[in-house]
Amino acid sequence: MKRKKKERQLLLQETITKNPFMTDEALAEQFSVSIQTIRLDRLELAIPELRERIKGVAQQQLDDVKALSPDEVIGEIVDLQLDDRAISILDISVEHVFARSGIARGHHLFAQANSLAVAIINDELALTAKANIRFTRQVQAGERVIAKAKVLNNVQGRTTVEVESYVDNELVFSGEFVMFRTKAKDSAKENDR
Amino acid sequence: MKRKKKERQLLLQETITKNPFMTDEALAEQFSVSIQTIRLDRLELAIPELRERIKGVAQQQLDDVKALSPDEVIGEIVDLQLDDRAISILDISVEHVFARSGIARGHHLFAQANSLAVAIINDELALTAKANIRFTRQVQAGERVIAKAKVLNNVQGRTTVEVESYVDNELVFSGEFVMFRTKAKDSAKENDR
Repeated sequence: MKRKKKERQLLLQETITKNPFMTDEALAEQFSVSIQTIRLDRLELAIPELRERIKGVAQQQLDDVKALSPDEVIGEIVDLQLDDRAISILDISVEHVFARSGIARGHHLFAQANSLAVAIINDELALTAKANIRFTRQVQAGERVIAKAKVLNNVQGRTTVEVESYVDNELVFSGEFVMFRTKAKDSAKENDR
Repeated sequence: MKRKKKERQLLLQETITKNPFMTDEALAEQFSVSIQTIRLDRLELAIPELRERIKGVAQQQLDDVKALSPDEVIGEIVDLQLDDRAISILDISVEHVFARSGIARGHHLFAQANSLAVAIINDELALTAKANIRFTRQVQAGERVIAKAKVLNNVQGRTTVEVESYVDNELVFSGEFVMFRTKAKDSAKENDR
Protein backbone atom coordinates (compact mmCIF):
# COMPACT_ATOMS: atom_id res chain seq x y z
CA MET A 1 0.00 0.00 0.00
CA LYS A 2 1.38 3.39 -1.03
CA ARG A 3 1.34 6.10 1.61
CA LYS A 4 1.88 9.83 1.58
CA LYS A 5 5.51 10.76 2.27
CA LYS A 6 4.85 12.23 5.72
CA GLU A 7 2.90 9.19 6.85
CA ARG A 8 5.49 6.84 5.38
CA GLN A 9 8.35 8.63 7.12
CA LEU A 10 6.51 8.50 10.43
CA LEU A 11 5.90 4.76 10.06
CA LEU A 12 9.47 4.27 8.86
CA GLN A 13 10.82 5.93 11.98
CA GLU A 14 8.60 3.75 14.17
CA THR A 15 9.51 0.57 12.31
CA ILE A 16 13.25 1.19 12.57
CA THR A 17 12.99 2.08 16.24
CA LYS A 18 11.17 -1.20 16.85
CA ASN A 19 13.54 -3.21 14.68
CA PRO A 20 16.91 -1.51 14.05
CA PHE A 21 18.11 -4.59 12.14
CA MET A 22 15.85 -4.19 9.09
CA THR A 23 17.65 -3.64 5.80
CA ASP A 24 16.73 -0.93 3.30
CA GLU A 25 15.60 -3.73 0.97
CA ALA A 26 13.14 -5.11 3.53
CA LEU A 27 11.89 -1.62 4.37
CA ALA A 28 11.39 -0.86 0.68
CA GLU A 29 9.33 -4.00 0.31
CA GLN A 30 7.27 -3.33 3.41
CA PHE A 31 6.45 0.21 2.29
CA SER A 32 6.08 -0.68 -1.40
CA VAL A 33 8.60 1.94 -2.46
CA SER A 34 12.06 1.81 -4.06
CA ILE A 35 15.21 1.31 -2.04
CA GLN A 36 16.28 4.75 -3.23
CA THR A 37 13.16 6.25 -1.61
CA ILE A 38 13.98 4.56 1.69
CA ARG A 39 17.52 5.95 1.51
CA LEU A 40 16.24 9.47 0.87
CA ASP A 41 13.74 9.08 3.73
CA ARG A 42 16.53 7.97 6.04
CA LEU A 43 18.67 10.94 4.98
CA GLU A 44 15.83 13.39 5.63
CA LEU A 45 15.09 11.74 8.99
CA ALA A 46 18.81 11.48 9.82
CA ILE A 47 18.46 7.73 10.43
CA PRO A 48 21.87 6.10 9.99
CA GLU A 49 22.36 3.07 7.73
CA LEU A 50 21.91 -0.46 9.08
CA ARG A 51 25.50 -1.12 10.09
CA GLU A 52 25.59 2.11 12.10
CA ARG A 53 22.20 1.36 13.64
CA ILE A 54 23.40 -2.04 14.82
CA LYS A 55 26.47 -0.46 16.35
CA GLY A 56 24.14 2.03 18.04
CA VAL A 57 22.24 -0.82 19.66
CA ALA A 58 25.48 -1.94 21.25
CA GLN A 59 25.33 0.85 23.81
CA GLN A 60 28.34 -0.19 25.81
CA GLN A 61 31.91 -0.37 24.62
CA LEU A 62 32.96 -3.23 22.38
CA ASP A 63 35.17 -5.62 24.33
CA ASP A 64 38.27 -7.03 22.64
CA VAL A 65 38.03 -10.59 21.39
CA LYS A 66 40.22 -12.82 23.57
CA ALA A 67 39.82 -16.46 22.54
CA LEU A 68 40.86 -16.02 18.90
CA SER A 69 42.44 -13.45 16.58
CA PRO A 70 39.86 -10.86 15.51
CA ASP A 71 40.49 -11.70 11.84
CA GLU A 72 39.54 -15.31 12.56
CA VAL A 73 35.97 -14.33 13.35
CA ILE A 74 33.63 -15.22 10.49
CA GLY A 75 31.52 -12.11 9.96
CA GLU A 76 32.00 -8.68 11.49
CA ILE A 77 31.55 -8.29 15.23
CA VAL A 78 29.52 -5.17 16.03
CA ASP A 79 28.74 -5.85 19.68
CA LEU A 80 30.75 -7.78 22.22
CA GLN A 81 30.42 -8.03 25.98
CA LEU A 82 32.70 -10.89 27.00
CA ASP A 83 30.94 -13.76 28.79
CA ASP A 84 27.64 -12.03 28.18
CA ARG A 85 26.50 -11.24 24.64
CA ALA A 86 27.71 -10.52 21.10
CA ILE A 87 26.40 -9.66 17.66
CA SER A 88 28.01 -10.21 14.26
CA ILE A 89 27.02 -9.47 10.67
CA LEU A 90 27.74 -11.73 7.70
CA ASP A 91 26.85 -10.66 4.18
CA ILE A 92 26.05 -13.76 2.14
CA SER A 93 27.67 -13.62 -1.30
CA VAL A 94 27.88 -16.08 -4.19
CA GLU A 95 30.90 -17.79 -2.64
CA HIS A 96 28.69 -18.87 0.29
CA VAL A 97 25.92 -20.55 -1.69
CA PHE A 98 25.36 -23.83 -3.51
CA ALA A 99 25.99 -23.19 -7.22
CA ARG A 100 22.86 -25.09 -8.16
CA SER A 101 20.24 -23.74 -5.76
CA GLY A 102 21.73 -20.38 -4.75
CA ILE A 103 21.00 -21.32 -1.13
CA ALA A 104 23.63 -20.51 1.50
CA ARG A 105 25.60 -23.57 2.61
CA GLY A 106 24.96 -24.62 6.17
CA HIS A 107 28.59 -24.55 7.23
CA HIS A 108 28.89 -20.82 6.58
CA LEU A 109 25.98 -20.01 8.91
CA PHE A 110 27.48 -22.50 11.34
CA ALA A 111 30.92 -20.85 11.05
CA GLN A 112 29.50 -17.40 11.79
CA ALA A 113 27.62 -18.67 14.84
CA ASN A 114 30.41 -20.91 16.08
CA SER A 115 33.11 -18.26 15.80
CA LEU A 116 30.83 -15.83 17.66
CA ALA A 117 30.40 -18.45 20.39
CA VAL A 118 34.20 -18.67 20.61
CA ALA A 119 34.64 -14.89 20.55
CA ILE A 120 32.21 -14.31 23.42
CA ILE A 121 34.37 -16.37 25.80
CA ASN A 122 36.56 -14.31 28.13
CA ASP A 123 39.50 -16.68 27.99
CA GLU A 124 42.67 -17.19 25.95
CA LEU A 125 41.48 -20.61 24.81
CA ALA A 126 37.93 -21.63 23.97
CA LEU A 127 36.96 -24.76 22.08
CA THR A 128 33.61 -26.12 21.02
CA ALA A 129 32.63 -29.33 22.81
CA LYS A 130 29.22 -29.84 21.25
CA ALA A 131 26.43 -28.05 19.49
CA ASN A 132 22.79 -28.52 18.74
CA ILE A 133 21.76 -26.51 15.71
CA ARG A 134 18.77 -25.80 13.47
CA PHE A 135 18.51 -24.26 10.05
CA THR A 136 15.07 -22.71 10.04
CA ARG A 137 14.93 -20.75 6.78
CA GLN A 138 16.94 -20.75 3.56
CA VAL A 139 19.31 -17.83 3.06
CA GLN A 140 20.15 -16.46 -0.39
CA ALA A 141 23.13 -14.55 -1.76
CA GLY A 142 22.74 -10.82 -1.11
CA GLU A 143 21.09 -11.35 2.27
CA ARG A 144 22.62 -10.10 5.49
CA VAL A 145 22.73 -12.48 8.43
CA ILE A 146 22.80 -10.99 11.91
CA ALA A 147 23.90 -13.47 14.56
CA LYS A 148 23.13 -12.73 18.20
CA ALA A 149 24.87 -14.73 20.88
CA LYS A 150 24.28 -14.82 24.58
CA VAL A 151 25.84 -16.79 27.39
CA LEU A 152 23.25 -19.00 29.10
CA ASN A 153 25.41 -20.45 31.85
CA ASN A 154 28.92 -21.29 33.05
CA VAL A 155 29.36 -24.59 34.82
CA GLN A 156 32.73 -26.11 35.71
CA GLY A 157 34.75 -24.70 32.84
CA ARG A 158 31.97 -25.21 30.33
CA THR A 159 30.01 -22.29 28.97
CA THR A 160 26.74 -22.68 27.11
CA VAL A 161 26.19 -20.05 24.42
CA GLU A 162 22.94 -19.61 22.53
CA VAL A 163 23.20 -18.13 19.04
CA GLU A 164 20.26 -16.98 16.96
CA SER A 165 20.82 -15.70 13.42
CA TYR A 166 18.33 -13.53 11.59
CA VAL A 167 17.73 -12.16 8.12
CA ASP A 168 15.36 -9.19 8.28
CA ASN A 169 14.07 -10.26 11.69
CA GLU A 170 13.33 -13.79 10.49
CA LEU A 171 15.13 -16.59 12.34
CA VAL A 172 17.33 -18.50 9.87
CA PHE A 173 19.59 -20.42 12.24
CA SER A 174 19.68 -21.22 15.92
CA GLY A 175 22.15 -23.18 17.95
CA GLU A 176 23.27 -24.01 21.44
CA PHE A 177 27.04 -24.34 21.74
CA VAL A 178 28.77 -25.88 24.72
CA MET A 179 32.26 -24.39 24.95
CA PHE A 180 35.33 -25.54 26.83
CA ARG A 181 37.46 -22.84 28.39
CA THR A 182 40.75 -23.18 30.20
CA LYS A 183 39.87 -20.98 33.15
CA ALA A 184 36.58 -21.46 34.98
CA LYS A 185 34.66 -18.21 35.19
CA ASP A 186 35.02 -16.19 38.39
CA SER A 187 32.34 -17.63 40.65
CA ALA A 188 31.52 -14.34 42.43
CA LYS A 189 30.69 -12.78 39.09
CA GLU A 190 28.81 -15.94 38.23
CA ASN A 191 26.56 -15.49 41.27
CA ASP A 192 25.80 -11.93 40.24
CA ARG A 193 24.12 -13.00 37.06
CA MET B 1 59.77 -51.05 22.03
CA LYS B 2 62.13 -51.78 19.12
CA ARG B 3 61.55 -55.00 17.25
CA LYS B 4 63.55 -57.00 14.70
CA LYS B 5 62.63 -56.09 11.12
CA LYS B 6 60.87 -59.41 10.34
CA GLU B 7 58.76 -59.23 13.49
CA ARG B 8 57.94 -55.57 12.88
CA GLN B 9 56.87 -56.19 9.30
CA LEU B 10 54.61 -59.03 10.40
CA LEU B 11 52.98 -56.86 13.04
CA LEU B 12 52.76 -53.96 10.57
CA GLN B 13 50.89 -56.13 8.10
CA GLU B 14 48.48 -57.26 10.83
CA THR B 15 47.95 -53.73 12.13
CA ILE B 16 47.17 -52.31 8.68
CA THR B 17 44.80 -55.18 7.88
CA LYS B 18 42.93 -54.49 11.11
CA ASN B 19 42.94 -50.73 10.61
CA PRO B 20 43.55 -49.65 7.01
CA PHE B 21 43.03 -45.99 7.98
CA MET B 22 46.23 -45.60 10.02
CA THR B 23 48.71 -43.04 8.71
CA ASP B 24 52.43 -43.70 8.30
CA GLU B 25 53.00 -41.19 11.11
CA ALA B 26 50.81 -43.13 13.53
CA LEU B 27 52.41 -46.43 12.51
CA ALA B 28 55.89 -44.98 13.01
CA GLU B 29 54.92 -43.89 16.48
CA GLN B 30 53.34 -47.22 17.36
CA PHE B 31 56.43 -49.16 16.22
CA SER B 32 58.94 -46.60 17.56
CA VAL B 33 60.63 -46.26 14.17
CA SER B 34 60.95 -43.41 11.67
CA ILE B 35 58.29 -42.67 9.07
CA GLN B 36 60.90 -43.52 6.45
CA THR B 37 61.24 -47.03 7.92
CA ILE B 38 57.48 -47.53 7.72
CA ARG B 39 57.51 -46.42 4.08
CA LEU B 40 60.31 -48.85 3.26
CA ASP B 41 58.46 -51.62 5.11
CA ARG B 42 55.31 -50.86 3.12
CA LEU B 43 57.28 -50.92 -0.11
CA GLU B 44 58.85 -54.29 0.73
CA LEU B 45 55.47 -55.70 1.78
CA ALA B 46 53.73 -54.08 -1.22
CA ILE B 47 51.22 -52.34 1.06
CA PRO B 48 49.79 -49.30 -0.76
CA GLU B 49 49.74 -45.86 0.84
CA LEU B 50 46.81 -44.76 2.99
CA ARG B 51 44.73 -43.06 0.30
CA GLU B 52 44.91 -46.17 -1.88
CA ARG B 53 44.11 -48.40 1.10
CA ILE B 54 40.99 -46.38 1.87
CA LYS B 55 39.87 -46.62 -1.74
CA GLY B 56 40.45 -50.38 -1.48
CA VAL B 57 38.06 -50.54 1.48
CA ALA B 58 35.35 -49.07 -0.71
CA GLN B 59 34.79 -52.35 -2.53
CA GLN B 60 31.83 -51.28 -4.61
CA GLN B 61 31.74 -48.60 -7.28
CA LEU B 62 31.68 -44.99 -6.28
CA ASP B 63 28.27 -43.46 -6.98
CA ASP B 64 28.08 -39.97 -8.48
CA VAL B 65 27.24 -37.16 -6.10
CA LYS B 66 23.76 -35.85 -6.90
CA ALA B 67 22.75 -33.20 -4.37
CA LEU B 68 25.66 -30.81 -4.99
CA SER B 69 28.51 -30.23 -7.42
CA PRO B 70 31.40 -32.61 -6.67
CA ASP B 71 33.77 -29.64 -6.23
CA GLU B 72 31.49 -28.32 -3.49
CA VAL B 73 32.24 -31.29 -1.26
CA ILE B 74 34.68 -30.34 1.52
CA GLY B 75 37.28 -33.09 1.53
CA GLU B 76 37.78 -35.87 -1.02
CA ILE B 77 35.05 -38.50 -1.34
CA VAL B 78 36.58 -41.99 -1.57
CA ASP B 79 33.45 -44.07 -1.04
CA LEU B 80 29.87 -43.25 -1.90
CA GLN B 81 26.79 -45.43 -1.98
CA LEU B 82 23.87 -43.02 -2.33
CA ASP B 83 21.31 -43.18 0.49
CA ASP B 84 23.53 -45.68 2.27
CA ARG B 85 27.11 -44.74 3.21
CA ALA B 86 30.05 -42.52 2.28
CA ILE B 87 33.62 -41.78 3.29
CA SER B 88 35.68 -38.63 2.74
CA ILE B 89 39.23 -37.54 3.58
CA LEU B 90 40.24 -34.05 4.68
CA ASP B 91 43.89 -33.17 5.24
CA ILE B 92 44.09 -30.50 7.92
CA SER B 93 46.53 -27.75 6.97
CA VAL B 94 47.50 -24.45 8.55
CA GLU B 95 44.59 -22.67 6.89
CA HIS B 96 42.18 -24.85 8.92
CA VAL B 97 43.58 -24.13 12.38
CA PHE B 98 43.44 -21.33 14.94
CA ALA B 99 46.64 -19.29 14.56
CA ARG B 100 47.16 -19.23 18.29
CA SER B 101 46.59 -22.85 19.34
CA GLY B 102 47.17 -24.73 16.07
CA ILE B 103 43.92 -26.59 16.73
CA ALA B 104 41.58 -27.20 13.80
CA ARG B 105 38.59 -24.90 13.81
CA GLY B 106 35.28 -26.61 14.46
CA HIS B 107 33.58 -25.33 11.35
CA HIS B 108 36.01 -27.14 9.05
CA LEU B 109 35.28 -30.50 10.66
CA PHE B 110 31.61 -29.56 10.54
CA ALA B 111 31.88 -28.60 6.85
CA GLN B 112 33.48 -31.93 5.94
CA ALA B 113 30.78 -33.89 7.80
CA ASN B 114 27.90 -31.71 6.66
CA SER B 115 28.88 -31.79 2.99
CA LEU B 116 29.24 -35.57 3.21
CA ALA B 117 25.72 -35.73 4.70
CA VAL B 118 24.50 -33.68 1.71
CA ALA B 119 26.47 -35.78 -0.78
CA ILE B 120 25.05 -39.08 0.49
CA ILE B 121 21.49 -38.02 -0.40
CA ASN B 122 20.17 -39.46 -3.66
CA ASP B 123 18.29 -36.35 -4.68
CA GLU B 124 18.89 -33.18 -6.69
CA LEU B 125 18.28 -31.02 -3.63
CA ALA B 126 19.28 -31.77 -0.07
CA LEU B 127 19.38 -29.24 2.75
CA THR B 128 20.33 -29.57 6.39
CA ALA B 129 17.41 -29.10 8.78
CA LYS B 130 19.23 -29.71 12.04
CA ALA B 131 22.31 -31.30 13.51
CA ASN B 132 23.55 -32.51 16.83
CA ILE B 133 27.33 -32.59 16.91
CA ARG B 134 30.23 -33.33 19.22
CA PHE B 135 33.91 -32.49 19.00
CA THR B 136 35.60 -35.28 20.90
CA ARG B 137 39.32 -34.71 20.33
CA GLN B 138 41.45 -31.79 19.12
CA VAL B 139 42.81 -32.06 15.59
CA GLN B 140 46.13 -30.50 14.57
CA ALA B 141 47.53 -29.32 11.25
CA GLY B 142 49.10 -32.23 9.36
CA GLU B 143 46.48 -34.70 10.55
CA ARG B 144 44.16 -36.51 8.18
CA VAL B 145 40.48 -36.67 9.07
CA ILE B 146 38.45 -39.56 7.71
CA ALA B 147 34.70 -38.96 7.89
CA LYS B 148 32.35 -41.91 7.61
CA ALA B 149 28.67 -41.28 6.99
CA LYS B 150 25.76 -43.66 7.04
CA VAL B 151 22.05 -43.19 6.54
CA LEU B 152 20.13 -44.15 9.66
CA ASN B 153 16.60 -43.67 8.39
CA ASN B 154 14.33 -41.97 5.89
CA VAL B 155 11.02 -40.70 7.17
CA GLN B 156 8.65 -38.46 5.20
CA GLY B 157 11.22 -36.63 3.12
CA ARG B 158 13.68 -36.36 5.99
CA THR B 159 16.83 -38.43 6.08
CA THR B 160 18.93 -38.86 9.20
CA VAL B 161 22.64 -39.25 8.49
CA GLU B 162 25.20 -40.18 11.13
CA VAL B 163 28.75 -38.97 10.52
CA GLU B 164 31.78 -40.06 12.53
CA SER B 165 35.19 -38.55 11.81
CA TYR B 166 38.45 -40.16 12.83
CA VAL B 167 42.15 -39.35 12.99
CA ASP B 168 44.19 -42.55 13.23
CA ASN B 169 41.17 -44.53 14.42
CA GLU B 170 40.43 -42.03 17.19
CA LEU B 171 37.00 -40.38 17.08
CA VAL B 172 37.44 -36.61 16.70
CA PHE B 173 33.93 -35.57 15.65
CA SER B 174 30.49 -37.12 15.54
CA GLY B 175 27.19 -35.76 14.40
CA GLU B 176 23.65 -36.63 13.51
CA PHE B 177 22.32 -34.59 10.60
CA VAL B 178 18.65 -34.41 9.69
CA MET B 179 18.41 -33.62 5.98
CA PHE B 180 15.51 -32.35 3.91
CA ARG B 181 15.17 -33.80 0.44
CA THR B 182 12.72 -32.84 -2.27
CA LYS B 183 11.68 -36.37 -3.20
CA ALA B 184 10.73 -38.86 -0.48
CA LYS B 185 12.76 -42.02 -0.80
CA ASP B 186 11.09 -44.97 -2.52
CA SER B 187 9.09 -46.60 0.28
CA ALA B 188 9.51 -50.18 -1.00
CA LYS B 189 13.27 -49.74 -0.74
CA GLU B 190 12.72 -48.10 2.62
CA ASN B 191 11.02 -51.23 3.92
CA ASP B 192 13.93 -53.35 2.76
CA ARG B 193 16.34 -51.68 5.07
